[in-house]
Amino acid sequence: MQKNDDELVFLPLGGCAEIGMNLNAYGYGPAHRRRWIIADIGVTFGDDTTPGIDLIMPDPSYLEAEDIAAIILTHAHEDHIGAIAHLWPRLKAPVYATPFTAALVKDKLHEQSLTDEVDLRIVELGATVQAGPFSVTYLTLTHSIPEPNGLAIRTPLGTVLHTGDWKIDPSPMIGGPFDQAGVEALGREGLLAMVCDSTNVFVEGQSGSEGDVREELAKLIKGLSGRVIVTGFASNVARLESIMLAAQAAGRSVALVGRSMHRIHGAARSVGLLADVPPPIDDEAAKHLPRENVLFLCTGSQGEPRAALSRIARGDHPHVSVAEGDTVIFSSRVIPGNERAIFAIMNQLADQGAELITEPRRHVHVSGHPCRDELRRMYQWARPQIAVPVHGERRHILEHARLARALQVPVALSPRNGDLIRLAPGDPVVLDEVPHGRLHLDGQFLVPEGAHGMIDRKRLAQNGHIGLSLAVDARGRLKDGPFASLRGLVGDGGTQPDTEAEKLEELAEQAFSRIPADERDDDEKVEKALERAVRRAAETIFRKRPLVDVTVLRV
Amino acid sequence: MQKNDDELVFLPLGGCAEIGMNLNAYGYGPAHRRRWIIADIGVTFGDDTTPGIDLIMPDPSYLEAEDIAAIILTHAHEDHIGAIAHLWPRLKAPVYATPFTAALVKDKLHEQSLTDEVDLRIVELGATVQAGPFSVTYLTLTHSIPEPNGLAIRTPLGTVLHTGDWKIDPSPMIGGPFDQAGVEALGREGLLAMVCDSTNVFVEGQSGSEGDVREELAKLIKGLSGRVIVTGFASNVARLESIMLAAQAAGRSVALVGRSMHRIHGAARSVGLLADVPPPIDDEAAKHLPRENVLFLCTGSQGEPRAALSRIARGDHPHVSVAEGDTVIFSSRVIPGNERAIFAIMNQLADQGAELITEPRRHVHVSGHPCRDELRRMYQWARPQIAVPVHGERRHILEHARLARALQVPVALSPRNGDLIRLAPGDPVVLDEVPHGRLHLDGQFLVPEGAHGMIDRKRLAQNGHIGLSLAVDARGRLKDGPFASLRGLVGDGGTQPDTEAEKLEELAEQAFSRIPADERDDDEKVEKALERAVRRAAETIFRKRPLVDVTVLRV
Repeated sequence: MQKNDDELVFLPLGGCAEIGMNLNAYGYGPAHRRRWIIADIGVTFGDDTTPGIDLIMPDPSYLEAEDIAAIILTHAHEDHIGAIAHLWPRLKAPVYATPFTAALVKDKLHEQSLTDEVDLRIVELGATVQAGPFSVTYLTLTHSIPEPNGLAIRTPLGTVLHTGDWKIDPSPMIGGPFDQAGVEALGREGLLAMVCDSTNVFVEGQSGSEGDVREELAKLIKGLSGRVIVTGFASNVARLESIMLAAQAAGRSVALVGRSMHRIHGAARSVGLLADVPPPIDDEAAKHLPRENVLFLCTGSQGEPRAALSRIARGDHPHVSVAEGDTVIFSSRVIPGNERAIFAIMNQLADQGAELITEPRRHVHVSGHPCRDELRRMYQWARPQIAVPVHGERRHILEHARLARALQVPVALSPRNGDLIRLAPGDPVVLDEVPHGRLHLDGQFLVPEGAHGMIDRKRLAQNGHIGLSLAVDARGRLKDGPFASLRGLVGDGGTQPDTEAEKLEELAEQAFSRIPADERDDDEKVEKALERAVRRAAETIFRKRPLVDVTVLRV
Repeated sequence: MQKNDDELVFLPLGGCAEIGMNLNAYGYGPAHRRRWIIADIGVTFGDDTTPGIDLIMPDPSYLEAEDIAAIILTHAHEDHIGAIAHLWPRLKAPVYATPFTAALVKDKLHEQSLTDEVDLRIVELGATVQAGPFSVTYLTLTHSIPEPNGLAIRTPLGTVLHTGDWKIDPSPMIGGPFDQAGVEALGREGLLAMVCDSTNVFVEGQSGSEGDVREELAKLIKGLSGRVIVTGFASNVARLESIMLAAQAAGRSVALVGRSMHRIHGAARSVGLLADVPPPIDDEAAKHLPRENVLFLCTGSQGEPRAALSRIARGDHPHVSVAEGDTVIFSSRVIPGNERAIFAIMNQLADQGAELITEPRRHVHVSGHPCRDELRRMYQWARPQIAVPVHGERRHILEHARLARALQVPVALSPRNGDLIRLAPGDPVVLDEVPHGRLHLDGQFLVPEGAHGMIDRKRLAQNGHIGLSLAVDARGRLKDGPFASLRGLVGDGGTQPDTEAEKLEELAEQAFSRIPADERDDDEKVEKALERAVRRAAETIFRKRPLVDVTVLRV
């Protein structure tokens, strides 16, 4: 029952104006006593610009003090579930997921020893969940993973369609068809808002169908001799099935290579998927089969250095190698930023004689996100009062809002992470910007992006480090040192910088001798003076600006 | 005159099996007394995988002991001339270049105070240079910079066409047409080998023409209101002219923004180019003009953080800013590896209300390198006995060799850097692999790729640094310390790791106390023991593996 001061708010904390890392929240109630549901809780991955960081996730601090009725997961991609085990302890709400998603979430909870703590509730496809003032109905859509769900979130102030990730695939190969009737019914009921995927808003036309890729892969693999290696996104189970069927038709056994292939394959079988293909064989057994009777299905399509394909390309995989006459199919796209790593692997594979097959030269991949024609159809079916683009960088969000306006949606927002947006009652408005940001999993600890550790590590990466120690007695006399330890600095031609270190020690000693005797008992003064001298000398000697740490020992 | 034991050899030291950084050499004579010419001497740029390194260039060590008759430059792109000032002191041969290229080389020599040392000889287009046993004729081709030259290298053992970078552009806008007749004449004479650009060997069709881009830019800019900002490669002077003409036709003054725009513009004017467009105005003056009367031509199309466009996007350029209604045209391509940086800028610009225009949504860019149809025509005209693909990653080289074979070239090589290849007499053969590699300009010094400095800096970037110092007296007693200095390491939530540092000091002190008293005078033993203790503790505390430096002071 709606009360007078009830409001329905939307709060993106991840996934707006950035890639990946989705965390969206919906709040209902009066401002001081809102109840919340969280839709998805994902990660993104570190890269060369974040050295030492593998996982990045949204900062959920704002929600930690709030009343969270449920965490509801739309599908099992890492950018939607990857943070669950890291952030759940801060949020502590029941988690809802459909069977396949739940199977993968269980693995994550198990790894962090959270299995017994987390109340994980498995939801059947199409079911409705009650969570506080929210009634959430799962809608089957199509995407590049089993069980992609939109969420019809009903409240006394109106209904929101939270699309999750989707496309309109007439032949998804696994799972039900896109629930067009369900979306149209929401449209007829009157939809307050649609919170919608923006990934492919710059791409005209349609994303294409898994069915077409299945046909092409079958045709392609049928015609190949030699070993066949296929790499792709493990989570695309329909694709795995297509590849396994193509292998079967071509008289090839399939071996899975790489941890996430096994993990996803297990999760898929556990919920009854992949029941119609022969089980894979062991990769060690596969290496003894004739080359034309085997197909290796590998992780590593993004050039990840520790994944199977990288190891195969480098020639250091224990069971899989390529040679002249073999074929490597990239049934995947190049995620921006991974170009150099992927091309390096392609060069290594080509060098060993493999033929490389990629989209678009052959139609071996389709995107899982809606292109402009699909967005147009979705808006026609759903007819929301408010368009809320999410899941994109800033330019995607803005372009999606423009598109929605062109499609006659009365209001199109362009939210940013941290925008607390009132969707109802009244015209939508940004009430506040709440604390938000990114957390880095930095070794053991979750630390805010921009913490001093990363700043220092980047400076160390550019400029190296000089440590300087000296022992000083109670009368201010130098008893030993200064000794310089240099890291990341080289002499001409790449030599050890021994003479340069001596020069630095000499200049440091001179700097020490210039400190008045009666000031030498002041550690800070001594350290500052020597730091300055060493830094200046390093600039002259190396044309670098290393970080300098001076330690004075008192003896 | 050919002697009995004379050989013609080809030696790529840069540009084979990698991007950029071209350095190719041709040797003639008996094996122990070859004379050489070097064709081009370029750089590539460092990225996030090479922290602290801006410039990377081929290691010319092998040639340093050889007899070099000339360094011959084909054109002025950085991947062909960028290393001239850094490597010339090791090679010390006369340098040949056409006027525009020479103008830019002069700047480089001046910056390194080499103007008076280097014998820089300006060659007219189409001229022939005698250098030792080589007679080298400049052939005018077309590319994305003024004065792109192929080199017809004549020797008593046959002629090699060294293409440099090229495309077949029917309307190059600046410079002569592609010298098809010259190439065909070489074919008729009988061409021993063609050493040829592989960049676009995976792209079907043709690269397109500057003329078409000129038309499209004129049409596009004519129709815009608000400020127009165009970014692109400064070295493409024909493109600069196209943009300036389009601006003129649209009633806009042009202001150049960014150092290399001014540098290239100056070099172009100095050789008589850009004579038919009005001179640019000052960017500070431009900011006071009405928005519809100005066009800013900016550096930074690759997302370089210090370039003009980045500063404009961040809002910290002193004279240029964008607002709602303005347009930013990327008259450029995305060089692989730069995606994230470029997209970040696009997001910032879009966020400020600018409309972004990119290839291929509008035809605002063409490549300067030959696609497959152009390669096919070139081979038909030149009809070499030997195809020698260069200027590409490994997979480009291999694909180019495949294409050449399909075009009935009798022999197609797939060279690697360091391959010393005998082209004549007899069948081509790799005689040897000579020392080769990459040099990094690391601050002040040129150091080999893989030197310890970079290895340490990458470890520092991932894991941080711990310095530990302690003072020990002659009897092996600890007099002060151990003190730990931590860099790049953080506590939970990103805090200063003070308690963690104390813990490390405590554990280090315990480790020290466990060293038998009579072994404490052994610096190495003490350092090793404490290093091990600190490293192990850091792994437990931080789940990181920092570099550890221990210094023992003796008092």
